[in-house]
Amino acid sequence: MLKVIAFDADDTLWHNEAYFQETEHKFCALLENYLPQHTVARELLQTEIANIALYGYGIKAFMLSMIETAIRITDKQISNEAIEKIISYGREHLDKPVEIIEGVEEVLQKLKGKYRLVMATKGDLLDQERKLKKSGLDHYFHHIEIMSEKKEADFKKLIKHLDIHPEEFAMAGNSLKSDVLPVLNLGGHGFHIPYHITWAHERVESTIEHDNFKQLNSIIELLNYV
Amino acid sequence: MLKVIAFDADDTLWHNEAYFQETEHKFCALLENYLPQHTVARELLQTEIANIALYGYGIKAFMLSMIETAIRITDKQISNEAIEKIISYGREHLDKPVEIIEGVEEVLQKLKGKYRLVMATKGDLLDQERKLKKSGLDHYFHHIEIMSEKKEADFKKLIKHLDIHPEEFAMAGNSLKSDVLPVLNLGGHGFHIPYHITWAHERVESTIEHDNFKQLNSIIELLNYV
Repeated sequence: MLKVIAFDADDTLWHNEAYFQETEHKFCALLENYLPQHTVARELLQTEIANIALYGYGIKAFMLSMIETAIRITDKQISNEAIEKIISYGREHLDKPVEIIEGVEEVLQKLKGKYRLVMATKGDLLDQERKLKKSGLDHYFHHIEIMSEKKEADFKKLIKHLDIHPEEFAMAGNSLKSDVLPVLNLGGHGFHIPYHITWAHERVESTIEHDNFKQLNSIIELLNYV
Repeated sequence: MLKVIAFDADDTLWHNEAYFQETEHKFCALLENYLPQHTVARELLQTEIANIALYGYGIKAFMLSMIETAIRITDKQISNEAIEKIISYGREHLDKPVEIIEGVEEVLQKLKGKYRLVMATKGDLLDQERKLKKSGLDHYFHHIEIMSEKKEADFKKLIKHLDIHPEEFAMAGNSLKSDVLPVLNLGGHGFHIPYHITWAHERVESTIEHDNFKQLNSIIELLNYV
């Protein structure tokens, strides 16, 4: 019955949040003469959330939010050198190798040919294409779907665009909020594969009871169901 | 024979480069105590081109390039207030209304239903979706294709993804380099609709002789050919 399986990318196929946290740690350390590191982190998160509607997701948005936060919390005293450092943290982040999560390649190998596999992510297209290429996983995917948001309306559009019915669509990802709940609401299938760290803005506490929902411990368990 | 007509968005459907130039003028004026405005503009263009591979296109990349340029050309003397101004220029740019170019709506109206119309752009997805919504043109398009680059390989992927042959594909846009030449090389059709300003990095001087190529003066002339 399933025709298309969509995979979230960041923290589902490869590690990502760990890199953001590393970049954030460097940023917080840079500013610790002004504020305790955990306060800097809280201020940065506030800026990020306020900027999502205008900037969207991804490292460029994160870089702009870091610069804005630095200016605000230093009361406009941040040096040019420090801003250059923030920019260099972002550039280093962009240059990071792509580390594939355990089990991913085996799963994709076994599912390829049986289903149309797509990568569905709300990151920046250029970043995501670069990561997919670096990962060497590109040949498993029919194509990449870049979504500006992962809400019900966005998945509705995606399913229409794929020319299938919702019940023929499954989404696997690490975010209940973005990858699972909206798809279940549309009549599709959702597989939740938790990542050991979740961005504060993506955290949802809930136990889901739904016929089309499966809670997995790791991506390899997907093979028990499809 | 044609099945899909793809339209570039910025400076083909709506004004864009004029807004970038306006933002750039503000930036150059902000820094004129350090360097003549035309020198600032040249430095900014250099930064932008150097950053394309890492940042891609769009206003966030432009904002980061402005900040980097400001720090460099002031020899790290730029004030926090001035950096805040640069960020506010970017935010104002993002908030600009969308002005549709003359003739666009009539053309889309007449072609809708006869061809599958797609918007194919290398901007940022979030920006482009916002502009499409603001423009009120969204109902004319089957979907948006966000391309990280507009080179031959990218159009090849797009045409494959659309499940058509190259000769069933036409692209209309203001850039010979990005919208026309790669499509002609693949066996598709190209319509060049110049915009009165072209970003320095997109300028190509050439007269094209090709059976599948049409030089138009404005988008309305497209109706003479399809």
